[in-house]
Amino acid sequence: MDVTCKQAEEVIMMSGGDMAKPLLGRRNVDNDPNLVPTAGRTIGILGSGDFARSLAIRLTFSGFKVVVGSRNPKRKASLFPLAAEVTFQADAVKKTDIIFVAVFREHYSMLCELSDVLTGKILVDVSNNTEMNLHKESNAEYLASLFPTCTVVKGFNVISAWTLQSGPRDGNKQVLICSDNQEAKRTVAEIIRVMGFTPADMGSLSSACEIENIPLRLLPAWKIPVFLALGLFLCFFTYNLVRQVIHPYIREQKNKFYKIPIEVVNTTLPCVAYVMLSLVYLPGVLAALLQLYHGTKYRRFPDWLDQWLQHRKQIGLLSFFCAALHAVYSLALPMRRSHRYQLIETAVKQAMEKKPDVWIEEEVWRMEMYISFGIIALGLLSLLAITSLPSIANSLNWREFSFVQSTLGFIALVISTLHTLTYGWTRAFDENQYKFYLPPTYTLTLLVPCTVILAKVFFLLPCVRQRLLRIRRGWEKDMQQKCPSTLRVVGGASEADPGTQQIGEQV
Amino acid sequence: MDVTCKQAEEVIMMSGGDMAKPLLGRRNVDNDPNLVPTAGRTIGILGSGDFARSLAIRLTFSGFKVVVGSRNPKRKASLFPLAAEVTFQADAVKKTDIIFVAVFREHYSMLCELSDVLTGKILVDVSNNTEMNLHKESNAEYLASLFPTCTVVKGFNVISAWTLQSGPRDGNKQVLICSDNQEAKRTVAEIIRVMGFTPADMGSLSSACEIENIPLRLLPAWKIPVFLALGLFLCFFTYNLVRQVIHPYIREQKNKFYKIPIEVVNTTLPCVAYVMLSLVYLPGVLAALLQLYHGTKYRRFPDWLDQWLQHRKQIGLLSFFCAALHAVYSLALPMRRSHRYQLIETAVKQAMEKKPDVWIEEEVWRMEMYISFGIIALGLLSLLAITSLPSIANSLNWREFSFVQSTLGFIALVISTLHTLTYGWTRAFDENQYKFYLPPTYTLTLLVPCTVILAKVFFLLPCVRQRLLRIRRGWEKDMQQKCPSTLRVVGGASEADPGTQQIGEQV
Amino acid sequence: MDVTCKQAEEVIMMSGGDMAKPLLGRRNVDNDPNLVPTAGRTIGILGSGDFARSLAIRLTFSGFKVVVGSRNPKRKASLFPLAAEVTFQADAVKKTDIIFVAVFREHYSMLCELSDVLTGKILVDVSNNTEMNLHKESNAEYLASLFPTCTVVKGFNVISAWTLQSGPRDGNKQVLICSDNQEAKRTVAEIIRVMGFTPADMGSLSSACEIENIPLRLLPAWKIPVFLALGLFLCFFTYNLVRQVIHPYIREQKNKFYKIPIEVVNTTLPCVAYVMLSLVYLPGVLAALLQLYHGTKYRRFPDWLDQWLQHRKQIGLLSFFCAALHAVYSLALPMRRSHRYQLIETAVKQAMEKKPDVWIEEEVWRMEMYISFGIIALGLLSLLAITSLPSIANSLNWREFSFVQSTLGFIALVISTLHTLTYGWTRAFDENQYKFYLPPTYTLTLLVPCTVILAKVFFLLPCVRQRLLRIRRGWEKDMQQKCPSTLRVVGGASEADPGTQQIGEQV
Repeated sequence: MDVTCKQAEEVIMMSGGDMAKPLLGRRNVDNDPNLVPTAGRTIGILGSGDFARSLAIRLTFSGFKVVVGSRNPKRKASLFPLAAEVTFQADAVKKTDIIFVAVFREHYSMLCELSDVLTGKILVDVSNNTEMNLHKESNAEYLASLFPTCTVVKGFNVISAWTLQSGPRDGNKQVLICSDNQEAKRTVAEIIRVMGFTPADMGSLSSACEIENIPLRLLPAWKIPVFLALGLFLCFFTYNLVRQVIHPYIREQKNKFYKIPIEVVNTTLPCVAYVMLSLVYLPGVLAALLQLYHGTKYRRFPDWLDQWLQHRKQIGLLSFFCAALHAVYSLALPMRRSHRYQLIETAVKQAMEKKPDVWIEEEVWRMEMYISFGIIALGLLSLLAITSLPSIANSLNWREFSFVQSTLGFIALVISTLHTLTYGWTRAFDENQYKFYLPPTYTLTLLVPCTVILAKVFFLLPCVRQRLLRIRRGWEKDMQQKCPSTLRVVGGASEADPGTQQIGEQV
Repeated sequence: MDVTCKQAEEVIMMSGGDMAKPLLGRRNVDNDPNLVPTAGRTIGILGSGDFARSLAIRLTFSGFKVVVGSRNPKRKASLFPLAAEVTFQADAVKKTDIIFVAVFREHYSMLCELSDVLTGKILVDVSNNTEMNLHKESNAEYLASLFPTCTVVKGFNVISAWTLQSGPRDGNKQVLICSDNQEAKRTVAEIIRVMGFTPADMGSLSSACEIENIPLRLLPAWKIPVFLALGLFLCFFTYNLVRQVIHPYIREQKNKFYKIPIEVVNTTLPCVAYVMLSLVYLPGVLAALLQLYHGTKYRRFPDWLDQWLQHRKQIGLLSFFCAALHAVYSLALPMRRSHRYQLIETAVKQAMEKKPDVWIEEEVWRMEMYISFGIIALGLLSLLAITSLPSIANSLNWREFSFVQSTLGFIALVISTLHTLTYGWTRAFDENQYKFYLPPTYTLTLLVPCTVILAKVFFLLPCVRQRLLRIRRGWEKDMQQKCPSTLRVVGGASEADPGTQQIGEQV
Repeated sequence: MDVTCKQAEEVIMMSGGDMAKPLLGRRNVDNDPNLVPTAGRTIGILGSGDFARSLAIRLTFSGFKVVVGSRNPKRKASLFPLAAEVTFQADAVKKTDIIFVAVFREHYSMLCELSDVLTGKILVDVSNNTEMNLHKESNAEYLASLFPTCTVVKGFNVISAWTLQSGPRDGNKQVLICSDNQEAKRTVAEIIRVMGFTPADMGSLSSACEIENIPLRLLPAWKIPVFLALGLFLCFFTYNLVRQVIHPYIREQKNKFYKIPIEVVNTTLPCVAYVMLSLVYLPGVLAALLQLYHGTKYRRFPDWLDQWLQHRKQIGLLSFFCAALHAVYSLALPMRRSHRYQLIETAVKQAMEKKPDVWIEEEVWRMEMYISFGIIALGLLSLLAITSLPSIANSLNWREFSFVQSTLGFIALVISTLHTLTYGWTRAFDENQYKFYLPPTYTLTLLVPCTVILAKVFFLLPCVRQRLLRIRRGWEKDMQQKCPSTLRVVGGASEADPGTQQIGEQV
């Protein structure tokens, strides 16, 4: 009886729930190896490189006892914090149950001599590769295959030695972990939390490959959108080059090459920005059409559409970037020497002809209008860009995010269209604008955006809108036909769910 | 004895404190249904819509066993991850103690047949409404009233099915929860943490209504500031329209309508920006006056002032937005065709009169000065806007935040005033500027900002400043009169506190 | 037996691991003072100021029982939430084991009468000072010296009363804590987590001084960079003033003072931006040279270099700020009255001489080129600035961050150099540009950037590059000479580590 009471009391001391009790009388708990609380545990580190050192610094700082296993403890001791014990590998391993393995994959096999003392312990694999998918199996799985009696947890590889040392001052640095053993994962997660990082469970050890690839990624979500933007830029640039520079050179032997760095770029950028913006809204239109066609939202979209839907944010941000550059280029136009020279030339010619009146009301209105629309569209796009910042997107609920990104974004698309239309004015019907029979760029760019706008208007028709809403709440065309009575009254609805609308509207 | 020892040991295994021990020998803990650790628990889900599915995906991913209760398990099984068990509702409920109720409110009553098997269990209400305050009581309270033997926890409704599925990669997505039972709330909070989200306790179940309204909010903090900005814009726009367009049309039959899209807007925007900026600092001045008048900071401010104080950030950001638009509009002025025509016209006229000298030193200085002040003010305002970003505001301590927002912001107000004054120059005293007896807009906008600046200067007078500081540290006029001795020596100060200054200075 | 079973069961109830069990039958757990779970604990607060009140509000909101100890409970009770018990100090202390001490340091000694009842309890020191390093020892250490029988934990001082009251809606507000007692720290950390904040362990109580200084800091990392920028600005401004204003005034009696607010500032800003940008990359070059020279990366850099390396982010952001201002100033140039007058003057003169042709092809090209380079450099710099935002930097892995900051940043430096070179064109060799024998500013600014670019090119030479890579993976010149065989084959590599490259590349 007495003993069990004591045991139960000791249990209390280390459980997360009870809090002040242990402090009241019995502090010898720290000396009991079986009952040490998280923050007082001994943790082992194998290896003595930078990462091992940074780990040791952070762990001792967070209140852990650290024992470092090295092949040459005497030489390496000076590299570690004083509070850390540096000893031989076998020695270090015996003193603890959780061991960070901070050596290169190529040297894992050298640890095999420690196989016996490692039995039953948790090994934390912190290694990274230098190239993606260099090996068949992940480092962590390879380690697990070498030490079948150990429990391997993958983790910490996404954190740089630098961040480890300086500490997670901003408090939301994630450490991704995975393991086949829930308990070991929980243990490591607790250590991560005590160190001040946020653990993120990535499932079983087979995810190790994915986790090991993360530090090697180079903005994967941006690749397609950036190539898309570059591709569009090249196409439009060549097209505009032909129309604005090559054509006058060939037809009229006029040297307009000075236009390349600014004017040609500045007629290309808005085309890219405008087309990219419409490409943000096009996949949603296609998805809605597919949903209408199939009469259900439970049918998976084709892969290309899925990919496209997931890249909308990046496409939108690149569109904004091009639009902002276009704005700066446009504002820089009157600064240029060429603008000045042309102005003076015109003025001098008019003066020589004694014609002070040059005012063309239509031209004035055209320009006031399209500049105005352009600025408004840019203002709206900048709001969209700002709400894409992670810290702001996080503070918005889904309805607010969708209001800014869908509603305001679509309004920006409409105003950009007005900007393009007023810029074009009647010139699309002027034969002189067709150089080499090539129509002006703005007429080409209008195609996709106008399609998107018309489709969106079509979705606003009451009958279409109603059907879409029903589909997005979980209604299915086929379901209804098969068992109309029950499903409409009971099943369909009762098992649909409150989040439906959210997923449905994402598209 | 033996048994209790074993029990205590098993307890150890699941307590957060101990870490590696359970792994050393006894892994059968996973099979003991009463002692399963958090991450191995079985969790039930009622419903089979999108949200149910996303929940199942995330839960299985985080290491939970998931059992889904459906009316038609065979049909729905294919929609769920393989690891999740899909069975009949009553069956599912029996297998677990924590059940996510992912059905619409309208179908809660259909669950009543499960009443018996649900007794004593935790129900997590994840539902949302389609409209604010649609029902008298919150969904969670309604659920609790239907199942009085259950413990209801509200939560997860602020997370979209999308976020659930894709996982909280950035690690600081909050899940608001509330419940009348602390223990149940703690249990759900732990599950939330294991899922990688951050639980945020909102108190008792009566907060459910508030939590359910959160996903339905549409930027509530922005409503008043946006309407304020729109209101000011409309007033100033009409005023400027009359002065700049209507007046020359009526008096001189001059067609100046082309000025509407850019010039009139561009004289309106700076007015809005400037007045809004001063409205950021006005409530602080009023609050300080109230504190001085009442001789205490413990008197609540009137509601309108409280509201105003809380909207300063939004008002300031809108002011910056208008100022930035004003900058872009101004920079676009020389791009316009109208500007070009006027320039050529003037040049031609001067050339015809053989007068090359058009330099007016005063005009030159006026413009260099006000453009310069304008750019500096915009630069300062952009610093303010950047420090308003949540991720940056979080990394600043209170003193730094207040330095940027109060000190730099006030300097921006002073420089904006200089911008306005140099823009006005002596034209405020020129009779020709008064169209229809209406003074130029900039003279009107100076009113509030100058009041604020004068008040701030007044607060810097030593005697006023001293009194304000004392009040903000907790000193009270009345207190002193009633019991001067004790309070000054002991009570007042010893019970005042270190955070005082912070709250006091907030105003 | 029976009893122990019950005890074990009660233990289960409060341990973090088990979850639903306690709810099934036994809710009387809340009444057992020894076994209360975290969220139901009683917590004491000494003091009744704003901070005490805010603490009480947040604690009761998070499910704690709060007992406030005041010298005058009756008077103060009304200030606290209803759920909090307000009583005499000694009374309050007896009811709990964790006490927040929310009184000023000057009044700590008044608590000495409570010494007996406080024995063995945890005191949380939340105090702040009004000045840095005002006292020899930190407030927390002073409190600990007054109450040697208590365990003191420092914490919460970095949170404002305002944030406490309004709650951490964004969920990543850190609360820094430190204490000599791990268990007490863990207890307080758990309370912090339940309150919705993120605890960050700062080690032993000797860190209290550092924690207490945090709320008093005023952007310490920005001080040196800002003074550097101001210093450079002043130097270049004076230099440009002499060349652009003083020189024509003295030599030709021309009044060019109107150039001061915009033109002189606008030739100064790009110099500051450009030099600052090169100063971001110079310390990395110096560090690499040092590493090459010493043949190891384990030698500490001199302090000034270390400091410099740590301020690169701030220097870079200030460079971007100057560059952005330079862009706005430049774009504003054609708006100015002086620009207009000069234009008209030239036009009129040309018209009077009947010379319509003013086109100088070289001048046109120069300007088109340098404006173009300038806009591209600004675009790249803005990408760098955006990825410096904490929320974006957090979402990038190290490789991505380094790609943007090092690679794109260096490209921005190269393009800025092209911008400067094309701006200069052949004017650097034109004698008329040397006013008072002073060369134009842009020739001066080219010095540091060109050095950096040449050094970077030097590092790309295969032999240098190879050696640098080896050094950064942990290779050492001396090591190799002393024991070449073992270290190269086994030790050196096997104990090097996967994070090496990361730290090495930071420089």
